[in-house]
Amino acid sequence: MNPEDFRKAGYRVVDWIADYRKSIESRRVMSELKPGDIRAQLPASPPEAPESFDAILADMDRIVAPGLMNWQHPRFFGYFPSNGLLSSVLGDFFSTGLGVIGLAWQSSPALTEVEEVAVDWLRQMLGLSASWSGVIQDTASTSSIVALLCARERATNHGASRGGFQQAAVPLSVYVTAQSHSSVQKAALMAGFGHDYIRIVPHDVTFAMRADALATMVHEDRSRGMRPAVVVATIGTTTSTAFDPLDAIAKIADDEQLWLHVDAAMAGSGMILPECRHLWQGVELADSLIVNPHKWLGAAFDCTTYFVRDPGHLVRVMSTNPSYLQSAADGAVKNYRDWGLPLGRRFRALKLWFLIREQGVSGLQARLRRDIANAKWLEEQISTTSRWRVLAPVPLQTLCVRHEPPGLEGEALDKHTLDWVARLNQSGETYLTPAMLDGRWMVRISIGAELTERDHVAQLWELMQRYVSSATP
Amino acid sequence: MNPEDFRKAGYRVVDWIADYRKSIESRRVMSELKPGDIRAQLPASPPEAPESFDAILADMDRIVAPGLMNWQHPRFFGYFPSNGLLSSVLGDFFSTGLGVIGLAWQSSPALTEVEEVAVDWLRQMLGLSASWSGVIQDTASTSSIVALLCARERATNHGASRGGFQQAAVPLSVYVTAQSHSSVQKAALMAGFGHDYIRIVPHDVTFAMRADALATMVHEDRSRGMRPAVVVATIGTTTSTAFDPLDAIAKIADDEQLWLHVDAAMAGSGMILPECRHLWQGVELADSLIVNPHKWLGAAFDCTTYFVRDPGHLVRVMSTNPSYLQSAADGAVKNYRDWGLPLGRRFRALKLWFLIREQGVSGLQARLRRDIANAKWLEEQISTTSRWRVLAPVPLQTLCVRHEPPGLEGEALDKHTLDWVARLNQSGETYLTPAMLDGRWMVRISIGAELTERDHVAQLWELMQRYVSSATP
Repeated sequence: MNPEDFRKAGYRVVDWIADYRKSIESRRVMSELKPGDIRAQLPASPPEAPESFDAILADMDRIVAPGLMNWQHPRFFGYFPSNGLLSSVLGDFFSTGLGVIGLAWQSSPALTEVEEVAVDWLRQMLGLSASWSGVIQDTASTSSIVALLCARERATNHGASRGGFQQAAVPLSVYVTAQSHSSVQKAALMAGFGHDYIRIVPHDVTFAMRADALATMVHEDRSRGMRPAVVVATIGTTTSTAFDPLDAIAKIADDEQLWLHVDAAMAGSGMILPECRHLWQGVELADSLIVNPHKWLGAAFDCTTYFVRDPGHLVRVMSTNPSYLQSAADGAVKNYRDWGLPLGRRFRALKLWFLIREQGVSGLQARLRRDIANAKWLEEQISTTSRWRVLAPVPLQTLCVRHEPPGLEGEALDKHTLDWVARLNQSGETYLTPAMLDGRWMVRISIGAELTERDHVAQLWELMQRYVSSATP
Repeated sequence: MNPEDFRKAGYRVVDWIADYRKSIESRRVMSELKPGDIRAQLPASPPEAPESFDAILADMDRIVAPGLMNWQHPRFFGYFPSNGLLSSVLGDFFSTGLGVIGLAWQSSPALTEVEEVAVDWLRQMLGLSASWSGVIQDTASTSSIVALLCARERATNHGASRGGFQQAAVPLSVYVTAQSHSSVQKAALMAGFGHDYIRIVPHDVTFAMRADALATMVHEDRSRGMRPAVVVATIGTTTSTAFDPLDAIAKIADDEQLWLHVDAAMAGSGMILPECRHLWQGVELADSLIVNPHKWLGAAFDCTTYFVRDPGHLVRVMSTNPSYLQSAADGAVKNYRDWGLPLGRRFRALKLWFLIREQGVSGLQARLRRDIANAKWLEEQISTTSRWRVLAPVPLQTLCVRHEPPGLEGEALDKHTLDWVARLNQSGETYLTPAMLDGRWMVRISIGAELTERDHVAQLWELMQRYVSSATP
């Protein structure tokens, strides 16, 4: 495909995406295809001869489109909002089209410097002090691994440069809650801490970490021969948007020499609203922090921002400096390869830079405020309707709800919950994620897709009521 | 930006990229900007109000374009070819525009099933047996970490589920060569092995691992109280495209119960040519394998394929299964989140699928054969020209060369080498990467950008001769 062929084909892809986004409300949210349905339509072997772009485009309509969960649909309330605003999509398209790689500052200076600026803009938007330095990573999962590795290396005084983590005289322990995201425990396991040293701190009725329990566990563990090394606080847990009390946790971390990592992957976007910042009071005392602009904020996936207080430490843990990557500019520039795991880096900053410029801070703030108001409105509807219950506080845009018909409890209630939400999801009208809270199934409603207006939330509420009543025995 | 605004703006971005690619030969290869030049042109704070797309696009021309290393330039011979063929660019644009996320099969079935098919197509193209299962990762760096973690967990019988890597009774050791990519050592450090247990196996005159030396080191280390656990063999080293002898290494790995990981990140693409496959004879005996379609093959960055022999083991090491990610389809489908580190996944398969279809296997093969022939041609020119030396075998498309004026050696020769290549690179006419081989600087020429024809290689050779002569004392 030469540039002129690309021009023609590219227009068609632009049209396809424009039409897809424009028509998205008329599509199903969840695909109705069964496992293997898509694979069965594709040739088992690669084509020997080139195929026409027409053929490829036709398969996007015929095979791929019916096999999508439409995350950008205004009645998508599952998992979390993964907004890819169209300006950000174009920023990412530029990144791919330029085809430049960030191995070092010199391997594309703009890639590094636009990232420095865009991430610093975001820092300011979040109300964070200038003592934070940021970098774009792919996902929160990977960034959590980076954080746990940095904590490990601080606690072992850079054991990696000697015998590694294999020869810890005293085992290091990590503190999380049962509400921490699954990727946090995974990160601790990958970093080598081991299941036995991932300590689950009890949470309170709002599902937030109990700082008093953390302090007690740390003391007890120390007396039992462990060395408490890192605590991960969550700002907006996945299941119920609980906020671990950062101020109190930071004080313990300081007293006990723990690395404090803050996972604000989802709720961090909300901190562009000054009225929400009390929810992460104490964040300035953390060592590392994750915010995912690729969720609610609207940067096209993947775009996680990772902020640290001590970039020198990060670079020492992550750096490699083979001869083939050295350049005369080293020393005067940031080489972001030493700020994370991958050596090769996309020009990810463009999608964040485009987003912030095209929306403006005020535009982003207005949309997030709309979503919070919609969540409050729905909370009011549900909590004042009989047989319905809102199970956790709604500080931002996610609700945890259950329909509780009289006489149903325990496993029977679980069955009812899973049954109505499955039928509702299968209808294609909307999509919600069931999850467990306190050992029982409930339904999460995550409001915040770009296109979701009050009407869509009202439609959701009407659908929920319709589907539970047809399921009630 | 609504879909109609996107349609208009999208056409302009298509035009921009088409014009950029079309005019790329008339651009400098390397940017002439100095550290901080780009940052200085950008506002220090984010815009409060939305900006027009015109303003953003203007900055792409005015600020970003001059700050690029133009990797797609036909006279780019640096690092490695990072081809992003335009069909693949459109596949990736679709991925971003759709805005769907692969957390689970159910969160977008097509994302998973097209990946299964595209990766299996690539497996067949590489001549690999059906006993391999593949997945797309972001980069080789991350995939090497996954490989080292899988090796660690096999050697410790899933120590992560107990005390982790902190309590290894006998320290585990990793075997690499000094020619292994920097990301391999980094992966071993991240996985917790520690510098002291990364064992550097001597290489032979072709810069390939000496299997006899590996066997000896493994025996000696075992008697010194280590437990040899993993050997990383490189198929095409970064510096000189050396091929570690897989057959012999695999035999030792089998005898000694080592995990054999094969890093074919760069040269793996060459294995779509049957006539090259003797270079990785023995690959079928490995446990894990990396090939980067985002390098020479032409898939837009980032697109690394990671192949394993035992996906059940991989999934056991990587899996998490929180309630909010479970679905009725589990068990009947692949959940690729359990095949690597990140939970969230882009629809990366589209860029590989589009590439293979638009080029056909025959088209991809023809381009790679062109590049190999160009490298052979240049090798012949250089090796028959006085004062020039080709320092390593040229099995594929990378040459290691030095200009050696009479009387110059040691540091003076290094200075001469770094001097002429710096001036050549700064000219903007072409770009080469200096690197160290056997303790002395030399110059790598990596041929294989999509647009690089014989003429461009001839131009490079003419430039090299011109720049060394003006530098010779």
